[in-house]
Amino acid sequence: MQPPPAEPGMHEQEVDTPALLLDLDAFEANLDAMAAALAPTGTKLRAHTKTHKSPVIARLQMERGAVGQCVQKVAEAEVLAWGGIPDILVTNEVVGPRKLARLAALNSISRVGICVDDRGQVDAIAAAAEACGRRITVLVEIDVGGARCGVRPGPDAVALVQYIAASPHLIFGGIQAYQGSAQHIRAPEARAAAIDKAIGDARRTVEQLRQQGLACPIVGGAGTGTFAQEAASGVYTEIQAGSYAFMDADYARNQGAPPFRQSLFVLATVMSTAVPGVAVVDAGHKAMPTDSGYPLLHGRPGLEYVGASDEHGKILLHDGARPDCGEKLRLVPAHCDPTVDRYDWYVGVRKGRVECLWPVAARGAMA
Amino acid sequence: MQPPPAEPGMHEQEVDTPALLLDLDAFEANLDAMAAALAPTGTKLRAHTKTHKSPVIARLQMERGAVGQCVQKVAEAEVLAWGGIPDILVTNEVVGPRKLARLAALNSISRVGICVDDRGQVDAIAAAAEACGRRITVLVEIDVGGARCGVRPGPDAVALVQYIAASPHLIFGGIQAYQGSAQHIRAPEARAAAIDKAIGDARRTVEQLRQQGLACPIVGGAGTGTFAQEAASGVYTEIQAGSYAFMDADYARNQGAPPFRQSLFVLATVMSTAVPGVAVVDAGHKAMPTDSGYPLLHGRPGLEYVGASDEHGKILLHDGARPDCGEKLRLVPAHCDPTVDRYDWYVGVRKGRVECLWPVAARGAMA
Repeated sequence: MQPPPAEPGMHEQEVDTPALLLDLDAFEANLDAMAAALAPTGTKLRAHTKTHKSPVIARLQMERGAVGQCVQKVAEAEVLAWGGIPDILVTNEVVGPRKLARLAALNSISRVGICVDDRGQVDAIAAAAEACGRRITVLVEIDVGGARCGVRPGPDAVALVQYIAASPHLIFGGIQAYQGSAQHIRAPEARAAAIDKAIGDARRTVEQLRQQGLACPIVGGAGTGTFAQEAASGVYTEIQAGSYAFMDADYARNQGAPPFRQSLFVLATVMSTAVPGVAVVDAGHKAMPTDSGYPLLHGRPGLEYVGASDEHGKILLHDGARPDCGEKLRLVPAHCDPTVDRYDWYVGVRKGRVECLWPVAARGAMA
Repeated sequence: MQPPPAEPGMHEQEVDTPALLLDLDAFEANLDAMAAALAPTGTKLRAHTKTHKSPVIARLQMERGAVGQCVQKVAEAEVLAWGGIPDILVTNEVVGPRKLARLAALNSISRVGICVDDRGQVDAIAAAAEACGRRITVLVEIDVGGARCGVRPGPDAVALVQYIAASPHLIFGGIQAYQGSAQHIRAPEARAAAIDKAIGDARRTVEQLRQQGLACPIVGGAGTGTFAQEAASGVYTEIQAGSYAFMDADYARNQGAPPFRQSLFVLATVMSTAVPGVAVVDAGHKAMPTDSGYPLLHGRPGLEYVGASDEHGKILLHDGARPDCGEKLRLVPAHCDPTVDRYDWYVGVRKGRVECLWPVAARGAMA
């Protein structure tokens, strides 16, 4: 773990770089905005820890009404449970006896559910539950259009639910119906159409379960790009958004972008201005994954991040812009989740001052 | 820091995933091959820690004749110095008094040099050196075609060297002439032409320095894609290759690919086969940056990694291939450096057995 790049009370310009900066005013406004958006719908928030990796942030979300947290990995669930979060859902399939034993063991301090899309997974989870003498909550993931994980909606899903319900070691928890590939569709109509299909798939599956006498406590899914639609559907009970707390350049490119402010930045330092027309910053591939493009410069017209190498970012200078060597710049990450996962610390700033340092406690928690 | 995903003696198939796997036979063969390739040229290896992030690997390179190590960041230099590496060069500009104070302090246990391309940087390093009462070795970076950092070769470089040489707190160490953008040019002729230009720039600068009575102890540069050419130039004294120890899918795409074996893998587990024609593994963007494309499947024809999300990798199945849920697959990372930097541990394997665990000690050392 790296040492913290700042201390409370410092000016933002004194923070060592590269650093993961959280603008606390914008961040808190985002948490409040999501709570306000969901309140009239009756749909609950189960915010996704894969974005923030922090029990501190999880608690701030739960103070505003979130019913629990989502994670993708058992190692993330461990960090949350050890940090006092009582209700956690692994929104993902998990394969392997060591991981499932850890998940089962964790149920002694928190409720930790899991998703499946295969009978073999159900058997393995039941064995882990039996071995530690605790029933585990299992949701069935259905493929609502992403063609990644999940059984087909309808009869295939019902059959897998019946298989879970027949195990004395398991509790059927509901269905997982996340349409991830729709979140970044730029055009609102196409985005809405993809979610309409997901809602229809989920509704049909819930109805078929009911016909078999099977209640479906949770219908979970939705991300920052589409949550309002799932929340208004009358079908989804839990929204699993994560990025809303931070936002990123990629979500901002959606037409009809989500109603949240940019709160997450990578603070970088200009380390070379020797090449005419170029400024080089100390934040490249290792500081900010570029799977969704290059970062934007915050509040600095005339500066364009055009190329990354491992430890360098190349910025082209337009319209007479000429940052000084040593100057610090806020970059807006293209994709917030894998950016956060590169850092050991959040540096929380308010009005130009460092207010807090929070560990990215589940950084690298991939197992 | 995450717990290790394996223990010595385990079978490879028992390693928890995602894990960073090092095939020790291939790795050692690569270290030997580089030493053998450089021996007849008289050019020395100063291998780049930005790739491996490990004092253990640095020592293995130095046992085979490397004269020291390169790093990009002061935090990497600290990990090496604390791990017993006596001669380190920061092949990069470093800006900011806190970082320079750390670099100066480190010179009490190792020789740690640094690069500059600006008089302001020279002044700041001299101040840090004076403050801790130690002379610091400074190299001048010249721009040999990358248009990233570096002063122009020739008179501009000579002027900056004279400025360094005039400081009682600094030692002029040589010139840094790395052509990074040439390393992955696919066509051998174009790659060679780019390096010819770099060699010419370096030669001209060294000659102009000599005319001013200034010796140039180090001429450093070269990467895995072009090192043979710089080593044979008679101008370069030190080769700064790093990737050669591991290789990756991107270097393998060079025509006339470097003569090294793939030794680095990400071990992943198939976690879902519910969608027909698709297998999903537990290694996505967070496990393997995709800036240079998707990983290849090692030794598994018919499997094609076609899409990553944060924690999932989607593999298309061709020609009847049908991996089982739970099966473990070796992925060949597209770009080794930022992949290594995602992990806390190397799992060293030989003939299917875990032989050692080495910490990625400088993981996240960006400051």
